[in-house]
Amino acid sequence: MINIGIIGFGTVGTGTAKILLKNRSLLKDRTGIDINLRRIADIDIKRGRGIKLPKGILTTDAEEIINDPDIHIIVELIGGTTIAREFILKAIKNGKHIVTANKALLATYGNEIFGNAQKANVEIGFEASVAGGIPIIKVIREGLVANRIKAVYGIINGTTNYILTKMTEEKVEFAEVLKEAQRLGYAEADPTYDIEGIDSAHKLAILASLSYGSRFSIKDVYREGISWISPMDIEFARELGYKLKLLAIAKETDNKVELRVHPTMIPEEYLISKVDGVYNAIYVEGDAVGSTLYYGRGAGDMPTGSAVVSDIVDIARNIVNKSIGRIPGMSKSAKMKNLMKMDDVLSMYYFRFSALDKPGVLSKISGILGKYNISIASVIQKGRHERRAVPLVVLTHKAREKDVVRAVREINRLPIVAGKTVFIRVEGKE
Amino acid sequence: MINIGIIGFGTVGTGTAKILLKNRSLLKDRTGIDINLRRIADIDIKRGRGIKLPKGILTTDAEEIINDPDIHIIVELIGGTTIAREFILKAIKNGKHIVTANKALLATYGNEIFGNAQKANVEIGFEASVAGGIPIIKVIREGLVANRIKAVYGIINGTTNYILTKMTEEKVEFAEVLKEAQRLGYAEADPTYDIEGIDSAHKLAILASLSYGSRFSIKDVYREGISWISPMDIEFARELGYKLKLLAIAKETDNKVELRVHPTMIPEEYLISKVDGVYNAIYVEGDAVGSTLYYGRGAGDMPTGSAVVSDIVDIARNIVNKSIGRIPGMSKSAKMKNLMKMDDVLSMYYFRFSALDKPGVLSKISGILGKYNISIASVIQKGRHERRAVPLVVLTHKAREKDVVRAVREINRLPIVAGKTVFIRVEGKE
Repeated sequence: MINIGIIGFGTVGTGTAKILLKNRSLLKDRTGIDINLRRIADIDIKRGRGIKLPKGILTTDAEEIINDPDIHIIVELIGGTTIAREFILKAIKNGKHIVTANKALLATYGNEIFGNAQKANVEIGFEASVAGGIPIIKVIREGLVANRIKAVYGIINGTTNYILTKMTEEKVEFAEVLKEAQRLGYAEADPTYDIEGIDSAHKLAILASLSYGSRFSIKDVYREGISWISPMDIEFARELGYKLKLLAIAKETDNKVELRVHPTMIPEEYLISKVDGVYNAIYVEGDAVGSTLYYGRGAGDMPTGSAVVSDIVDIARNIVNKSIGRIPGMSKSAKMKNLMKMDDVLSMYYFRFSALDKPGVLSKISGILGKYNISIASVIQKGRHERRAVPLVVLTHKAREKDVVRAVREINRLPIVAGKTVFIRVEGKE
Repeated sequence: MINIGIIGFGTVGTGTAKILLKNRSLLKDRTGIDINLRRIADIDIKRGRGIKLPKGILTTDAEEIINDPDIHIIVELIGGTTIAREFILKAIKNGKHIVTANKALLATYGNEIFGNAQKANVEIGFEASVAGGIPIIKVIREGLVANRIKAVYGIINGTTNYILTKMTEEKVEFAEVLKEAQRLGYAEADPTYDIEGIDSAHKLAILASLSYGSRFSIKDVYREGISWISPMDIEFARELGYKLKLLAIAKETDNKVELRVHPTMIPEEYLISKVDGVYNAIYVEGDAVGSTLYYGRGAGDMPTGSAVVSDIVDIARNIVNKSIGRIPGMSKSAKMKNLMKMDDVLSMYYFRFSALDKPGVLSKISGILGKYNISIASVIQKGRHERRAVPLVVLTHKAREKDVVRAVREINRLPIVAGKTVFIRVEGKE
């Protein structure tokens, strides 16, 4: 019998407990192992969670779990990078295996945690830290192990995907949709982590570390949020045949890895651009397998609980078979890939200039773009107004980020340009 | 060092060899294990395959590999259910672990092969047997292990998906597209296995056995092919908001499992209905994870090779960690699920009646449908012609297969009905 202790009895903790109790005999049938939920710790053990627990299972003292000699695997579901880190380090010291959904912790203190775990010969399961119920960690680390990973493109934050989907379908402003999302519980009271792309960046650091056998941290990820996106740009994107998504991108080019999270225009015929609402999807391209995509719910009690329990089973199998460390926590080789500077990233771009409707405007703007080696693929000019600025939309071929930033700075200083230029990166075939 | 022998140097054998040679050091970095391609057997070792092999690796004698005491894992890529079966059984007897892409063999002799392997304490890897590069076996058996699987819906045959996609896009007849597919190498000279759904049924038997912890065989799968599909039905489907796909369906209802492969109309807004061309996708619904989908190439040298090598790595890890049998070949419990008879299956239906355009026709037909408890959801009647039959299209609510078959038999006997009624099952929300 393998004993489990859960620390943190919130949404995911409840889902995990439900699955462990409800599917215990199914899991035993499938694995031959009896997985026993022994203890759950939380500061609040009074609140009802719609689940009937065996007596005496709850405690307010996490240390009781961390120090219980009979517990094999500790599931950390508190979140955050302070107490969670302390608990995990202490549990590792006590020889406990760890399962966690804590992307912030792994993307910030991954080196320390994986390092300590390796020394103590315990395992860290973190399937639940990225894309909820989608078993993307297992897919990348095991299912696609034969492949050099060329690129990973992920919609890995449900809140922002919900907001962008609503903005697209209903043509309303960001602030309005955010409010609705908060009311429905799809966005937190303080939505910063989600809408500024921090959550996606945490997850990308983990996915990229696995894909490239390196240890990337949140600091390595270039990041833009979605709060500045206007329905007008979504509408122009649609006219040009694109959907707007917050995409987390990891890509290897010339032996360097680029890591970035930002609003991205994706050709509307791509499967990933059809992933709407709170759903997540990750597109993975391997040198052998080619294009693959994985889709499902990125959050929620039961989907994330499904990922937690799959980690528990994996570790339980290793305990029973005495094969702890069978799959290294991160790549066994410490070969670090070099990070590509954002300045050097190549991408296509969408520009929306606020230009006065005067003769010669396009020629001035395209002149500056040309000076910086940015070549134009198409142009849309909408509406005419002699006094006010009108939007001038330009799609480019591949250009270098550094050049784009400089060109935009120069264009923004032109007297015929009335407002700050909007630019959004574009994916797809040139 | 783990030594590999490949038997069968065709498309997938070549892809596997390419990956093992090209990514050997990558695999060593990732796993800490040196995986060495030691021998390849094929009846034809003269033909060039666009790959540079180490000297002395090729042989025409498979026995040399089966009896080589230094080979740990034998990869069977001959296909078929005769010689392949003999070789595999002999190799198992010699204590070799097996990796195979042979769905026909596993769906027919699965009991014998898994049984012998268990007795001999060797592993059978078969990721490559279903959906090529998509790691769906691993996903179901490990990634979603926490879930009771409610349903699996798969587009798991690239040839038929290519043909149906072309028929949809170009509105041409089946026979014409088949010819083109054969010319392009997407369909075999004898396309029976693909177009009659046999290949899909083999794969479904494997997926269902994993999902439901039973051992289903090809005989348990109800099956219809696509050769009788006409562009007219695809066009009506489109008008009604559906795409037509050859779907492999495994579903648990009232503790019984239904297994069927047939042309199916799917709501066009479902992600799986956007899977076109030779691509495969499998939708899996679990009680905890909810809806998930996995997409990629279902065939080809490198994608299928990717799956073969992931099995090799899994087994190599178990050899090195002395954890053979860590994951049972099929569920450890022998609890068999009952199969639902096709007669008892509930589905929505699309009917196309060839009815004479006379007053009272709809009333007669709907009268018979009503008699068999089949209730109509919508009706389309196209064109008018006093002498010739015109298509009368009816979509139904959920009805029982047995009733549908009887109703159609009775309707086909009506004097006002001029031809055989076409009926196609429909998925989606009622």
